[in-house]
Formats: sequence, structure tokens, C-alpha cells
Amino acid sequence: MTQQAPPAAPASPSSRPVLKVGVLGSGTVGTQVVRLLGEQAEEFAARSGARLEVTGIAVRDLAAPRDPAVPRELLTDDATAVATSNDIVIELIGGIEPARTLILAAFRAGASVITGNKALIAAHGPELYAAAAAADVDFYYEAAVAGAIPVVYALRESMAGDRVTSVLGIVNGTTNYILDEMSTKGLSFEDALATAQELGYAEADPTADVDGLDAAAKAAIIASLAFHTRVGIDDVLVEGIRSITAEDIREAHASGCELKLLAIAQRVALDDAAEGVSVRVHPALVPADHPLASVHGAFNAVLVEAESAGRLMFYGKGAGGAPTASAVLSDVVAAAAHRVNGGQAPRESSYADLPVLGPEAAITRYQIQLRVDDQPGSLAAVATAFAANAVSIDSVRQSAYVGGDQAVVTIVTHPAAVKRLNAAVEALRSQERVLAVVSIQRVEGE
Amino acid sequence: MTQQAPPAAPASPSSRPVLKVGVLGSGTVGTQVVRLLGEQAEEFAARSGARLEVTGIAVRDLAAPRDPAVPRELLTDDATAVATSNDIVIELIGGIEPARTLILAAFRAGASVITGNKALIAAHGPELYAAAAAADVDFYYEAAVAGAIPVVYALRESMAGDRVTSVLGIVNGTTNYILDEMSTKGLSFEDALATAQELGYAEADPTADVDGLDAAAKAAIIASLAFHTRVGIDDVLVEGIRSITAEDIREAHASGCELKLLAIAQRVALDDAAEGVSVRVHPALVPADHPLASVHGAFNAVLVEAESAGRLMFYGKGAGGAPTASAVLSDVVAAAAHRVNGGQAPRESSYADLPVLGPEAAITRYQIQLRVDDQPGSLAAVATAFAANAVSIDSVRQSAYVGGDQAVVTIVTHPAAVKRLNAAVEALRSQERVLAVVSIQRVEGE
Repeated sequence: MTQQAPPAAPASPSSRPVLKVGVLGSGTVGTQVVRLLGEQAEEFAARSGARLEVTGIAVRDLAAPRDPAVPRELLTDDATAVATSNDIVIELIGGIEPARTLILAAFRAGASVITGNKALIAAHGPELYAAAAAADVDFYYEAAVAGAIPVVYALRESMAGDRVTSVLGIVNGTTNYILDEMSTKGLSFEDALATAQELGYAEADPTADVDGLDAAAKAAIIASLAFHTRVGIDDVLVEGIRSITAEDIREAHASGCELKLLAIAQRVALDDAAEGVSVRVHPALVPADHPLASVHGAFNAVLVEAESAGRLMFYGKGAGGAPTASAVLSDVVAAAAHRVNGGQAPRESSYADLPVLGPEAAITRYQIQLRVDDQPGSLAAVATAFAANAVSIDSVRQSAYVGGDQAVVTIVTHPAAVKRLNAAVEALRSQERVLAVVSIQRVEGE
Repeated sequence: MTQQAPPAAPASPSSRPVLKVGVLGSGTVGTQVVRLLGEQAEEFAARSGARLEVTGIAVRDLAAPRDPAVPRELLTDDATAVATSNDIVIELIGGIEPARTLILAAFRAGASVITGNKALIAAHGPELYAAAAAADVDFYYEAAVAGAIPVVYALRESMAGDRVTSVLGIVNGTTNYILDEMSTKGLSFEDALATAQELGYAEADPTADVDGLDAAAKAAIIASLAFHTRVGIDDVLVEGIRSITAEDIREAHASGCELKLLAIAQRVALDDAAEGVSVRVHPALVPADHPLASVHGAFNAVLVEAESAGRLMFYGKGAGGAPTASAVLSDVVAAAAHRVNGGQAPRESSYADLPVLGPEAAITRYQIQLRVDDQPGSLAAVATAFAANAVSIDSVRQSAYVGGDQAVVTIVTHPAAVKRLNAAVEALRSQERVLAVVSIQRVEGE
């Protein structure tokens, strides 16, 4: 090993400045964060340049049982005091209030804030960014999307030299676990949900997960970062997985696909050479050989397509105390290093300010099952309905004879705007030879 | 969308400072970088806070034909002038000299430097880091490992709150392409190499790729970042793929595996509770259901295991002009933002200073094929040789009868130190019932 430089001389531990860290909330993630900051104090000091000293942990109920890793003497029920008396504040309460008020108070008190609160960012991101900028402190939230997978980092910094064209992700482990159970074991949605609840993958009230709201908040964050455009949760079209049946999964398999709940953020070319952004969360068929099709259980994966980089995939555990703590602590190190060495976290980047498009502008593919009159000319009639709406067909498959004179035909289109796809479906419905539109599924991933 | 804050007011383009950018080398990557900085100047300005103006492009031969995207008036053969007269210098010459001297000159002249030069970093990384720190400028090299996949970023920043235990990667597209051709088409190494050369995936002199040297430089960089320890290319055990035969690939398939060239960086527990680092590049069997087994063609993938995050995988294009330009330009944006807003790139982090271990300390699994006497007691004799060296056996498979009284047995061990594995092999060789050790392959990935 030929190394000309002398070994780097780290600042001696005693000369390092102390940074005070306050933690809001002491659930699974908070417990891990406090434990690791204690156990690996020397490593955090070496990496950040500062000694990180947890001065307070705000909890709702001082009397509740706690993990022994949480020093009892640091517990307090005065969250405002913790938010306003530290250099770095870690918000792990979740939800909109009091998290928002506490974070704003922390910024005003000169603290950098780390959070994993996707709902809050998706609803109030610009306000939080502005408050951080006004106070000249850092605002980090790697843990808000896909746990320890550095998706926020990748989009905010690694893609800063590129133009992202789309992001396609499995960002909610609960729903992916449920769909995976349905796919591999043939369970109904209800049974798969019950299993997920027993194992702690789904909460007693599973609404935020199964109705797609958690994924929608993440999709809003992803789209904001990817396209330098403000996207709030209300801009995201959301459809959950409650209505998915075992039959839908069987049909997906028959088409060589898996059914996945996807978060999709797309840059869409508009007619006048301008561009817009389509952001949505919905179940979609994914071809079995697509990388997202083989994301099993509670894992997350995010596929980023960019003009220069091509396709990048990030994969890992999207939730859980330890992976989320890993994301939080990387943000803590970054914020601490800025206190020591100067510099700042990236500010809000919304310069592109692209229009966020409505549901009809989304580009997708449809898989449409039709029951048709099994007569010569039926297929021509079907093809005409697509052609008249400028939707081109990728494949046609006769899947079953229903009776002597009826057949079920499965058609997969090429990508087209939902507006045109829906017009083609309407045209199909008015065809005499088309007896019924049996099902429509979106197909994503090529 | 409920957004309380007014839209962020970007600095007006005219008020932005200008940063001068010099480019050393104008090959495929340099051409893309210069083209994109020109075409997307407004976006780069919005993201970095500065207008980035390419002032010079150093080339060896002014008369050589160039892509029209490269402005001829910026070409010069005075590389030193380009290195010493800019705010940001992008080094794309490759190799040790003159790249090293030019980068050191750039640092001394107060420039931040972006490079993708893995060989230089693996040989002189500490010197370069020290020179950057002395000049209080940035040193970035995302493009040095796995092209546009943000592996350097992930290890240097996203894992800063975690403890990495191992990194396993396919980081050389050329060799992965060759092995993939051998695996899917049954080609010999020579024929697969010839195909790779025809398609431009391998160079006329393929030594750096097929002998594992390129991967070894990347392994050294990965290990340095993952373990906060200086690892140079000479610390890496290297074995290339030249000796891999079509028969080896068939045997891999028979074992349910793919043969891949892996870069491996491992944290290894030593007997005295201390830790060391094992860094190596060699072909290994990877079980077919392991994520690295399905990395095809010239793609790269890196699997990071960390104590809190668990397993993370990063996947994408590891080479090529556009993906590499994407990585370079993200570094340019970061360095430019620091010029505008203050702050600095991470400095060298070598505080852990773990010992870099020799070949015998590596932890791996062996798949050993033996030709044995097909008599009762042969298996017991084999098992004894392993047990005597504290190596436990994962599976035993009788793969073929050679003749009436001989059989071929394939044994896969559990993970163990190479020292113990080799001792077990020696013990096998001295067993009367063992007629020959037919082959030994390492097995990685669980």
C-alpha cells in the first residue's frame, strides 16, 4: 500500500464540541436512536466532528413502560422544552399536530430538525423548508421514504446532475406484504390483512396503509424531489388495495404478472412541448420479469429512471425500528457536521414548478378483459375502438370460451394517456359485439 | 394542496455567481459532461445556485476529431492551465499520471476536484484527501464506483449513522457481461471476451477488467468508505476470470448457482474481540435466488449489509458515457453549492483504522468436489477432515459415478475462515479414501 500522506489526525475527543440532541417521541424508532447514540457515541463523534449528547426525550406518558435502553432521567412530558432547547431535534411523534408546531418551534429556536414524518412533509413541506431556511438551520427527512433506503438522498443529491423522467416504487411494506401473501398463498385480502395484523406488519386500523395514504404521502415527497416541483398529498391520485380479490391475483398470474401497489411519479410531455407531472398510487400489473415483481414481503424498492443515468434501483427494508433509525442517524450526522464545519442541508428546490396534472393525463397501459360475441369480425370491431382513439394494442389473447358463442378476450395496450384509454373503453362499450367489459387493470413497468 | 408558504423565490439568474469549470479529458464522459452543462445550463444554475461556465477542455491532440457538442474554441493542450485556472476541475483523463499531478495542482490553485479515476484514488486516495483538506476545497468521486449508482454517496453519507458489516458487489460490467454470455449461451471465456470486444464492452487490452484490477480499485474505495479505514489497491486480494471455463459454469448451474466476479469488503471478527477488514475480488458461486445472481449483462449491483439498515441493494448501469456523466455532474452541483452557500464535501474518514487482513482471514464458504472411493466409510472420512478443522458442512451431494468404484461428491461448507477451509482441504488430500480434489470454488451470498 503506497500512501504518501500521514494518517489523518482526528480531533481529539475532548476538543470536539458538544451538540445537544432532543428527541420527540420514544417509540420503536426513538428507542433505537437513543440506544445507538449512546452505545456508539465514539463513532458518531468521529463521523460528525461533535459529541452528540441526548438531553431530553419527550413522551406523552411518563409512567408508561420503556425499553431499558432509554435513560429514564431524560424522559419528560414537556415536548416544547425539548424542541426549543437543543441543537438538533429529532421528531418521531408522527401525524400533523403537535409535530408541526413543535418542529416550527425548534426551527425558531435555532435547532436543525430531523424527521421521518411523511404525512407532515406531504402536507406542509414548503412551510417547513421555509422555516428552516429563515432560521438558517437544516431540515432532513431521509426516514420519511422507504426507511433505510437512501431515496431522499438519491433524488435530492445524487440526481442533481441529471433529469429524472420517472420514479416507480413499492414504498409501503404493509400492502406489499398483503399482496405477496395473496399471490404466494392464494389468500383473500381479508385473510392476508389478518395475518399482517397478527405479525405486526399492519396496524389495528390499517386505513393509512391499505387505502394507499401512506404511499401517497411518500409519492408526493418523491415527486417534489424528482421534479423540483411542489407536490402535496392532495395532488396524488390514490387508490388502495381493499378491493383486490384472489381472482384479480389469479388473473394477474395468468397474464404473467404480479399485482403490486405502486407509487408513480412521471414527467409527462404535454401537447404544446411543455411538461407536467403525474403522481399517483394504485395497484397495477407488473410483468413477472420486472425487478419490482420480485420484491417480496415487507421490502421496499424504488426504481428511478433518469435521462443520463438510465434505470437505477434501490432496494431494502422500508420500515421497522432499526432501519428507520439508520436513516434518522445519517441525517443527524449530516446536520451535526454542518454545525461543526459550516454548510447546510439542501433547501427546497421547486424552481421547475411544473403543473401537476389531473388523472386523465397519466400515461399508463391498460389490460382490458372483454366478453365478446365469438363471431368473425368481433376482433376487428374491438381493434377499431382502440384505433379510433389512437391507442395501439400490444397483445390480444383469447383467454376463455364462456359458452358456445361467447369468448373472453384480454387486450394489453401500449402506453397512452388515461384520457385516450378511457375513451377507447367507452368506444368498446358501445360496440355491439362487445357484450361486457369484464375488468380493467393498469400495467406498469417495462 | 394546502401550502402555507409562498413559492420559493429563486435567485434571479443574473444575480447568481459564475463558477468557472475546467475539464481534463474529452472522451465519451467528458463530451457528455460538456454537452449537458451547456444544454441544461438553467437547470444546473437553479440547482447549484451558480452559473457554471466551462472555460477550458484539456485534450492531448487538438487536431483529433471531436463530437460537435464540444466547443472547439475551448479545447487546449495545456492541461496545467485548465487545472489551475478554474473553481471546479473535472478530471477525466484516467490513470495515475498526469492525473495525480494535475489534481494536486488544481487543489493548490483552490479548485474543487471531481474525478471518476478509481485507479488513482485506490493508489493515492489519502494524499488527494489531504491536499483537498489543506486547500479547503472539495474532493468528490462518485463516478469512480459503479457509474451512476450512488454507491460512494450511500457509503459516505447515508451509512454515516450505521455500522456496515459487509459490501458485496458486481462492480465491473465487462466481466459480468462475459460471465453472463458464458452462462446464458454456453460460450468459452475466449469467445465471450471476443464478443464483448466486438460490442465495445471490453477493450482491446482487457487486462484491467478480466484480471480484476478495475474491480479491485473499486473494492479498495468501497472498503475505505464502509469501514472508515484506509484500504489501498495493494491491500486487495485479486483473482480475475481468465481461468473460468465453460465447464465451471456448467458445474455452477448444476449446483443451482451462477458464477460471478465479486468485489467483497467484510468486517471480520478476530479471536481477541478486535475486528479487521477483508477486501477481495474473485469469482464465486452465488445461489441462483440471490439478488446478485440475476444481475445481467454490463449492469452493476452493490449489496450493503449494515447493523441497523439490514440489507440494501443498489442496481444500475455501472459504466458508459451518460451514466458516468450523471455521477460527475451530481458531484459538480454539490461542489458548486458549497462555493455558493458554504460547507464542504466529507473529508477522509479513516478514524476506525482497522487492520486489513491477509488472505487466510477472509470468511467464505467452499464448494469442494472430490473424487472418492465409493465404499462405506468414505463419507465418514471426509466428514472427519472437516470436523477436525472446525468447518461445518452445509450440504453433501453425490454428483456422479465415475466408474464402478469411484464417485464424485460435492460438499458445500458453512462460512469459515479461509485458513480453516484450506486446512480442511489439506486434511482431505491426506485421506486415503479421497482420490482427488477435483475443484474448489468459493460461495458467496446467503
